[in-house]
Amino acid sequence: MKKWWFPAVLFISFILSAIGHYAGFPYTLEFIISAISVIFVAGFLGKATESVAHHAGQRLGGFLNATFGNAAELIIGILLVKEGHFEMVKASITGSIIGNLLLVLGLSVLAGGIKYKIQNYNVSLAGLNGSLMILAIIALFVPAIFLNTKAIEPADTNLLSLIVSGVLIAAYLLWLVFSMITHKDYLADVSDGGPADANHEEAAWSKGRSILYLIIATVMVAFVSEWLVDTLDPMTEKFGLSEIFVGAFVVAIVGNAAEHSAAVILALKNKIGAAVEIAVGSSLQIALFVAPVLVFISHLFASGPMDIVFTVIELAAIGVAVFIAKSITQDGSTNWYEGLLLLAVYVILGVSFYLV
Amino acid sequence: MKKWWFPAVLFISFILSAIGHYAGFPYTLEFIISAISVIFVAGFLGKATESVAHHAGQRLGGFLNATFGNAAELIIGILLVKEGHFEMVKASITGSIIGNLLLVLGLSVLAGGIKYKIQNYNVSLAGLNGSLMILAIIALFVPAIFLNTKAIEPADTNLLSLIVSGVLIAAYLLWLVFSMITHKDYLADVSDGGPADANHEEAAWSKGRSILYLIIATVMVAFVSEWLVDTLDPMTEKFGLSEIFVGAFVVAIVGNAAEHSAAVILALKNKIGAAVEIAVGSSLQIALFVAPVLVFISHLFASGPMDIVFTVIELAAIGVAVFIAKSITQDGSTNWYEGLLLLAVYVILGVSFYLV
Amino acid sequence: MKKWWFPAVLFISFILSAIGHYAGFPYTLEFIISAISVIFVAGFLGKATESVAHHAGQRLGGFLNATFGNAAELIIGILLVKEGHFEMVKASITGSIIGNLLLVLGLSVLAGGIKYKIQNYNVSLAGLNGSLMILAIIALFVPAIFLNTKAIEPADTNLLSLIVSGVLIAAYLLWLVFSMITHKDYLADVSDGGPADANHEEAAWSKGRSILYLIIATVMVAFVSEWLVDTLDPMTEKFGLSEIFVGAFVVAIVGNAAEHSAAVILALKNKIGAAVEIAVGSSLQIALFVAPVLVFISHLFASGPMDIVFTVIELAAIGVAVFIAKSITQDGSTNWYEGLLLLAVYVILGVSFYLV
Repeated sequence: MKKWWFPAVLFISFILSAIGHYAGFPYTLEFIISAISVIFVAGFLGKATESVAHHAGQRLGGFLNATFGNAAELIIGILLVKEGHFEMVKASITGSIIGNLLLVLGLSVLAGGIKYKIQNYNVSLAGLNGSLMILAIIALFVPAIFLNTKAIEPADTNLLSLIVSGVLIAAYLLWLVFSMITHKDYLADVSDGGPADANHEEAAWSKGRSILYLIIATVMVAFVSEWLVDTLDPMTEKFGLSEIFVGAFVVAIVGNAAEHSAAVILALKNKIGAAVEIAVGSSLQIALFVAPVLVFISHLFASGPMDIVFTVIELAAIGVAVFIAKSITQDGSTNWYEGLLLLAVYVILGVSFYLV
Repeated sequence: MKKWWFPAVLFISFILSAIGHYAGFPYTLEFIISAISVIFVAGFLGKATESVAHHAGQRLGGFLNATFGNAAELIIGILLVKEGHFEMVKASITGSIIGNLLLVLGLSVLAGGIKYKIQNYNVSLAGLNGSLMILAIIALFVPAIFLNTKAIEPADTNLLSLIVSGVLIAAYLLWLVFSMITHKDYLADVSDGGPADANHEEAAWSKGRSILYLIIATVMVAFVSEWLVDTLDPMTEKFGLSEIFVGAFVVAIVGNAAEHSAAVILALKNKIGAAVEIAVGSSLQIALFVAPVLVFISHLFASGPMDIVFTVIELAAIGVAVFIAKSITQDGSTNWYEGLLLLAVYVILGVSFYLV
Repeated sequence: MKKWWFPAVLFISFILSAIGHYAGFPYTLEFIISAISVIFVAGFLGKATESVAHHAGQRLGGFLNATFGNAAELIIGILLVKEGHFEMVKASITGSIIGNLLLVLGLSVLAGGIKYKIQNYNVSLAGLNGSLMILAIIALFVPAIFLNTKAIEPADTNLLSLIVSGVLIAAYLLWLVFSMITHKDYLADVSDGGPADANHEEAAWSKGRSILYLIIATVMVAFVSEWLVDTLDPMTEKFGLSEIFVGAFVVAIVGNAAEHSAAVILALKNKIGAAVEIAVGSSLQIALFVAPVLVFISHLFASGPMDIVFTVIELAAIGVAVFIAKSITQDGSTNWYEGLLLLAVYVILGVSFYLV
């Protein structure tokens, strides 16, 4: 991607996509242009993230990437909540979580595992990530179980949703304190400081330029993602897909294109710790921060409050994704077959949602 | 607690609480006096347990504490079964399990983790504790699933309950053989025998006196707990709480006050192994011993046999508590954030049960 | 089993069982003769497997044993599918999975653990086995959840079943590539190459003779198993048992007699890695290969296609078996108490199915 033509194609596809959106190209054409543009914009973001990670260390880099990657999802989520598309929001949250845990993580582990026999990362971080995933599914399952067994009144659902959301946001903010401040070195990447460390290779850009590029790339991803999402409604009708499939798979794949490309590139450079941090960290950020923030924000709009109760098949999808991802990541080492297992579960879920 | 005034306050609050109970003070006053008394009695029990643990080693000390702590629960359980309050018994068993796994363990891990960066304990013991927890939830889930799917007749429920209870009691007794006899050293605390071991500090009391105090303190806890429980029925009505919330949270918190204070004190002395043993061991003892013994005992009373089938929300609460506690304890090391995660789940369950 | 009378009894019981089957002995007599014959034939298979494992290494030996052991199940499964006994097939698949994970593994761990205090095996293999088990239950749970919540039409069930089956078979074949080719040494037994290795003891038979005996023994097991299964229908009626209990327990115990005896013998020789490989490997082979192959084969018969949707209690049984087996095997070390825990869950499930 250091090739001279890369910036040119990046710029041209982005401009074309913008023109297509505002000038109103036919949807199929706009969809294709935007999708191509997303690939290049995401590649740019991946390169920028990698350069920042080079300067900042793998974990902080991974966290920055997850945050910038999810900025797009948060913006899209707010727009959908404002228009009252609560089912679509929950479907895309579901899709984002399983997309990160299964598709992004699976492809990273597979790609890295084909190049390197075994890849290792900090086992304490893996354990804590697993416990945070469990907190996330508990927070989503408990309100659904209490409501479905009629143990609580539907009228109390919004109150319970607000409290659960508050607990999740508090847990997420304290996680940042824990992982960035009090236990930063405890969770450091296993390869950090090693003599043959990949960090010793030359950085693509200076520190300041890397950060600037990271911000520009994130903004571009947010725009292109939205233009692409705008084409989905007519495309959905044209090809006869269900809303839940589009929300959980198409929107989520597009929305996570950035994390996706960055994670795979890092895995191929044997920085699997940063790749896992992007994939798992991004899904945790969606579950522990984006989703509960959307619940709070929904109280500001006239479209009425949104609760945190997901459907049974959404919960099942999130549950199995967490279950297999936790089993695969908890020993702090990965190989190509584990990547394939994650992808196998993604295919099973994808086909099931497609048939809905 | 070596202060001169401690025995005086302990004695006075206990006597006042007894007078209040037998003389019939107003319920709100009696509730406050008993609650204060519980705090001091539990502190006394914690001190005595710690001293016994000093002489006996952390694990035996932890086991003794769990047993003495649960004596109160068993007595209260028998009284409730005799009067046919089966729902209340199951709610308080549920509350006792989740209270130990989430509240007691969470506060111990948090308190210890604030003082010490990382606390370690025997990882083999952690794994076995996790497997025992899973046996416990399997034993509670399987009868409920077979009954709810109408796979077995309600008439066969009592037979199945008796057999499952027999299996659990046998598993518990063999666990004592395993952990105290055949594999005692395999499960020894990691810190035992270390040069800077906390065991080398001076004991508060002699061996004989420690055991005597442990017995006296346990009896006092049993009495004060019961006096406090007696005030709950009118308090429940007065403040409009549901029976399941009172059983699962108020009764359980009071009933576990002893384990609670002992576990936190041990965690603060960097004896996290003993603290985990108290919290996890106590919940295992409730699930594998107290609950099945109550099923057997219920056949002796005219109030008819009690089965082992819990409600869906009780099973969900126990299931999520085991799930997160197993995830957090299985690596044999803890930190403050893991304590917070346990408390976050406890808050989510507490609010959900409160809204029932 | 090197005793001179062993081949004689093996031969005589096999011939008697054959005569009983084709001459039509009374069912009760034929049942007893076949059952005795199975014990000796399985003992022969265990001895042959052990000898092959001696020459081939523990893991390949374990894999060969699982494959030969499951040949019988596949043949029986095809016969049942051809006759449209779909419920019986699923019950025996369920029984085979839980029988291997709980009974075979439990007895092996218990027997080995009584003789040796702690037995160790490759922890990476244990982790991967656990992840494969989770893939298996996800593949069985997801279609059931989507169908039971009416998220997909019954008409789409067969399509979903075929795709899920295809994913499972692909995952199984790639697992063979991974474990036999690309990561063979990574998964090697911990005891391999050790100075006091059990492999240094003398083999019973030469390499060629061991393989020949393995094939002969497998064929004999397949025949005797079928003769025994033939007596089950009338025995079921006579003793008033449900079809699901017979399928899940009697058929499964008989069908797994070979793995059973081989695994226990290996555990007693401190080759716990091979014993786990037989038990866990066999259950994985049933779930990831035999079951999906039967779904594909069912499309060839006039009795109509069989889907992959299991009943709730079958899924519950498989789920809890995987849950406890994963918890116990994941640390790569076993002891007698862990064997007992597996057997305790087997008893709870057995009694529950008996009461159906």
